[in-house]
Amino acid sequence: MKDDSLPEWVSEKCPGVSMVHQDAARARQAELTKPRGALGRLETLAIELAGLQQTDRPRAARVPIIVFAGDHGVAAQGVSAYPQDVTIAMMANFAQGGAAISVLARELGSRLEVVDAGSLAEAPMPGIITDKPRRGSRDFSREPALEPAELASAFECGNRAVTRAAASEPDLLILGEMGIGNTTSAAAIAAALLRMRPEMIAGGGTGVDAAGRAHKARIIDVALTQHGLAADGSPARILRAVGGLEIAAIAGAMIAAAQRRIPVLVDGFIVSVAALAASRANPSCRPYLIFSHRSAEQGHRLVLDALEARPLLDLDLRLGEGSGAALALPILRLACALHNGMATFAEAAVPDREG
Amino acid sequence: MKDDSLPEWVSEKCPGVSMVHQDAARARQAELTKPRGALGRLETLAIELAGLQQTDRPRAARVPIIVFAGDHGVAAQGVSAYPQDVTIAMMANFAQGGAAISVLARELGSRLEVVDAGSLAEAPMPGIITDKPRRGSRDFSREPALEPAELASAFECGNRAVTRAAASEPDLLILGEMGIGNTTSAAAIAAALLRMRPEMIAGGGTGVDAAGRAHKARIIDVALTQHGLAADGSPARILRAVGGLEIAAIAGAMIAAAQRRIPVLVDGFIVSVAALAASRANPSCRPYLIFSHRSAEQGHRLVLDALEARPLLDLDLRLGEGSGAALALPILRLACALHNGMATFAEAAVPDREG
Repeated sequence: MKDDSLPEWVSEKCPGVSMVHQDAARARQAELTKPRGALGRLETLAIELAGLQQTDRPRAARVPIIVFAGDHGVAAQGVSAYPQDVTIAMMANFAQGGAAISVLARELGSRLEVVDAGSLAEAPMPGIITDKPRRGSRDFSREPALEPAELASAFECGNRAVTRAAASEPDLLILGEMGIGNTTSAAAIAAALLRMRPEMIAGGGTGVDAAGRAHKARIIDVALTQHGLAADGSPARILRAVGGLEIAAIAGAMIAAAQRRIPVLVDGFIVSVAALAASRANPSCRPYLIFSHRSAEQGHRLVLDALEARPLLDLDLRLGEGSGAALALPILRLACALHNGMATFAEAAVPDREG
Repeated sequence: MKDDSLPEWVSEKCPGVSMVHQDAARARQAELTKPRGALGRLETLAIELAGLQQTDRPRAARVPIIVFAGDHGVAAQGVSAYPQDVTIAMMANFAQGGAAISVLARELGSRLEVVDAGSLAEAPMPGIITDKPRRGSRDFSREPALEPAELASAFECGNRAVTRAAASEPDLLILGEMGIGNTTSAAAIAAALLRMRPEMIAGGGTGVDAAGRAHKARIIDVALTQHGLAADGSPARILRAVGGLEIAAIAGAMIAAAQRRIPVLVDGFIVSVAALAASRANPSCRPYLIFSHRSAEQGHRLVLDALEARPLLDLDLRLGEGSGAALALPILRLACALHNGMATFAEAAVPDREG
């Protein structure tokens, strides 16, 4: 797993799940006034969170959202339905409150931080944290997307964002992304990590058609061979060759969060690919990743399967920004409220099935 | 469709969906700063609500919850994992705030009304509205569950509950149920309405095993033949033969709500069976029914398919009480917030894909 281009801390072991708290939560669920298991995934969520948060009373109240933005050199190959300047325009939209994730953050009472982890923006933008080693990744159809120091810097960017968020003692984190061309980078990373053919993974992104998907897959296919990833590749090597700065920052943020015992609510395809890379770089972070939804992007299912993840929602979303994770947050909150707030059979004097 | 045992109003046509508002909502969705369709089901939900509510700004803010409780004579046949007195104990638990639906109502800011539509309770219970023609249905394995006047009365009970709720001008209604033995009644109604064999529909309910399910299916099978429903039956005839008071009240409430242009967020198996009966008794109510989740109860999928319903959530729930609908409410609320609150491409000066 060790690779010189990743910072030392990346491979440090994340704390284990507390079995004591998980067992206590499971026992409590069996005493609540409902048939055993009748709350389905809500029960397992509450039990899981109790173990991760080392508590009898799992919480999903304080959940900041961090959106990492980056541009992608491969956009020059015509892989996106939108022009590249949409990345910067959308960053401004996030900060000004007009984007989907801005609306969701307001509704959920979540703080929204936007990090320019590698957009083409030449100057710092108002309301946005600039933390990037360069403007955009290189076009991976021509050369490696990132140099080793740039990849390391992106992981540090993720770590710094988590350090800032950790100051408010969050119960959970939502990580989102924005970047024209980033489904192409994510599909390339996934194809390399999973050793699957790109055409199985490359999807419509923001809206390319069947011909556009075939074009994306061809570009990825050629690049994987050219960079020598078709046969062999560590997560770091793959991220350097075909990665993106915001994707690497998210992978770093996930590991940094898990090391601080902060669970992460994982968004759609691109964030799930970052989760796959993070889990390969440091498998001990995997228990801290809670998967929010299955997106309409065709490769997402394969990535989720590889992570043995069963997401909570399946609503044909394909927006990114952390929007799918934000939509799943109320489910976690209600799972916690039920776990903590329902009466037991004894408290309510309701006869149990043995009664 | 007309049947003498249902009140006149049941067959009165519900108002049509406003295509003008639906089209305006669809046009707005196309202008919001996201790829077209990227919010998936959230977009169609907002468009659907706009048409039902005849508004440019769909809302799911004020959503009272009404839980209808009833007992079932067929419980004497050992079809439930729980003793029959759980119905009354759970009604008290609802009113005292300890049940799942009580917790959810608090978290969602929803008013919770509990209606005793036919439990065995001998006296009115504190915090509960008593509105029943008799204490429990008759054992349908021996005789018809309800007399015509009792069925009519249950529909009126549903209508009265909606009238009470309508005073606060709700954006939407959640209807829930409680009743030991009611998955058996619901499975019998569904088998008769769908003309399917009971073993395809009868599920585990609150927790009976495979032998218990087979026992339920046999009891239903014999009853359908005995009551002459195997070959032919109107919704009213089926509800009289094998129905339950709370199930009939919910069917009545759905029609009454749709007639007042109030959409209903439909819960799990039992409420979906009431929705099937309501849609058969008055097909014009169908557009007002929004299906919240697919439960773990095996017959639910068949009922949803028959209604051409694609529910929002699939979380292995099998509790009832309206809990699944309550869990889906945040999705509707966020769909409305996104529809009403996101910036357009023009407002945010974001280049659209044609740009």
